[in-house]
Amino acid sequence: MPTSSRRATLATVAASAGVSVATVSKVLHGRSDVAPETRSRVESLLRQHDYVAPPPRRGEAVGSDTVEVQFDGDICGYSAEIIQGMVTTGAEVGVGVVVSIRKDPDLTVARARDLVAAGRRALIAVTSELTAEHLAALSRVRLPLVVIDPLNMPPARVTSVGSTNFAGGLAATQHLLSLGHRRIAYIGGPATASCNQARLHGYRAAMEAEDTPVPPGYTRFGHFRYRDGLEDGAAVLDLPKPPTAIFVGCDESALGVMEAARARGLRIPEDLSIVGFDDTQIARMTSPPLTTVRQPLREMGAVALRTALRLAAGEPIDSPHVELATELIVRGSTASVTR
Amino acid sequence: MPTSSRRATLATVAASAGVSVATVSKVLHGRSDVAPETRSRVESLLRQHDYVAPPPRRGEAVGSDTVEVQFDGDICGYSAEIIQGMVTTGAEVGVGVVVSIRKDPDLTVARARDLVAAGRRALIAVTSELTAEHLAALSRVRLPLVVIDPLNMPPARVTSVGSTNFAGGLAATQHLLSLGHRRIAYIGGPATASCNQARLHGYRAAMEAEDTPVPPGYTRFGHFRYRDGLEDGAAVLDLPKPPTAIFVGCDESALGVMEAARARGLRIPEDLSIVGFDDTQIARMTSPPLTTVRQPLREMGAVALRTALRLAAGEPIDSPHVELATELIVRGSTASVTR
Repeated sequence: MPTSSRRATLATVAASAGVSVATVSKVLHGRSDVAPETRSRVESLLRQHDYVAPPPRRGEAVGSDTVEVQFDGDICGYSAEIIQGMVTTGAEVGVGVVVSIRKDPDLTVARARDLVAAGRRALIAVTSELTAEHLAALSRVRLPLVVIDPLNMPPARVTSVGSTNFAGGLAATQHLLSLGHRRIAYIGGPATASCNQARLHGYRAAMEAEDTPVPPGYTRFGHFRYRDGLEDGAAVLDLPKPPTAIFVGCDESALGVMEAARARGLRIPEDLSIVGFDDTQIARMTSPPLTTVRQPLREMGAVALRTALRLAAGEPIDSPHVELATELIVRGSTASVTR
Repeated sequence: MPTSSRRATLATVAASAGVSVATVSKVLHGRSDVAPETRSRVESLLRQHDYVAPPPRRGEAVGSDTVEVQFDGDICGYSAEIIQGMVTTGAEVGVGVVVSIRKDPDLTVARARDLVAAGRRALIAVTSELTAEHLAALSRVRLPLVVIDPLNMPPARVTSVGSTNFAGGLAATQHLLSLGHRRIAYIGGPATASCNQARLHGYRAAMEAEDTPVPPGYTRFGHFRYRDGLEDGAAVLDLPKPPTAIFVGCDESALGVMEAARARGLRIPEDLSIVGFDDTQIARMTSPPLTTVRQPLREMGAVALRTALRLAAGEPIDSPHVELATELIVRGSTASVTR
């Protein structure tokens, strides 16, 4: 923590209020031997200077240090893997992992100040859309931030952890091409999300390398959710010339596509091959088990936590952005083309 | 927190060491104005008396209070729902939820002491098998405990939150009977787990009420895991007279049974009806979507957190054990018997 800048703030506040640093300290500690008028003047100046109380003194106890991991929506299979990686690493280094879900009102300066005052050493935001205001709020209270799999590409000064989405999209599509498929669709996430764009372009690169055209209507963008997979799967399967294989940008969406196929009497993999993305636990449990691109989500959680702690300790980090390798996991949802 | 008993400990240690309480306090706070010999005598006595340092002073900041939720194994879909409920409630009451995974070495006095010193207000253990030693360790450091869905029936003095497992097993089986099924199998969890026993007996009660015998080999007990569902599903489906419907004690196991059915060319629900238990997110995403008994896991997480905070604050609780209602959710994996 930037102790020296905190001291500077106290001195500045004391000077502005025309009192001693000791008096400012008394106000901070809720002591009663300060005149009400002085107290209110000092408190107002502390707020103006964005004074952040130091976190509770770090004890010897394992887990008294905490890091907060914040998700943008419900805790899903994807979140579970990241939590697993963080909690395992947190136990190794003696840091507690506090889970939260981002809510409106958003990441304001007040909220960021709360996090610091609550003893959080760093914030890890997962699949968040971050604005300049969010970054300014965190920077103002000097709370280190690491972003996992950001939906938009964060500015260079934001530390982030992702996976090799382009290579994953390429591998998924090459796998389908190698099975003889040519009519291959892509069902992705938000059109503007950088991870979606990287997966899409991996798919496009593989198709182009085989001189295989992407017919109109063969790429669709929704959200990385089951329901979107169900709807977008239905849309491509109802095309006059439907695909024989679909690369889906997320396991949950892939399950939606599987259900759209079942509803149309299509068997997987005999009539339709499907590749997912993520390799969350459900990928091993679908019927048939899902061929998918593994994102090392646990490792991403572990790396994000370690990086956040390095930032909190003022230690140097290797790179502001790290991508861990994706890997194609072949299971039962893909087979050679039969029609 | 039991402040008064902590004061008693300090006085006892001071008396045993032949020093003042102020001197004991100095040792605790690492002050240098204590003779090395005195310090080591006091420290040794503090250890003997299981003295636990008070948690960091509670600030105004939202989330500086933390509660730890501890899972017995990997963070799965079931855990995700409980975390979701706790985190949502935690945000409402300003308490941070620290997630951890139980590890060997187990819940010892030292580990319990660490939790208190790290500022945890309470521990919530999920699907844990708790021994008298675990309870003694927590009680010794006066850390409140709430258990969710305990695998063994905890003693009356342990506070626990569960769901109406017997009623759920009854409803699942009645649903299958009402569809005309008579050859109904049960694939459950650990034979000794109380939630498994309650679900099994709900199934038995429904079968008996319809004078429907349970043939040999029709009840199987493994773990609440996909792999067990796959193996036990295969075992009952390979019986000379296989069931036309299976009630499975957990969604993940139900997915294993679905895969065992698919591998045998059986269509769901045309050839085999399946009912799960839990209603985790995957139940809505299987193909076909899974008919299941909903456990209100988010609400169970919320109730456990609120109860833990009441215990931590020394407030009375309504009952040491609460069961929230289960509910049958009919989806696409069950249909009228056709053979």
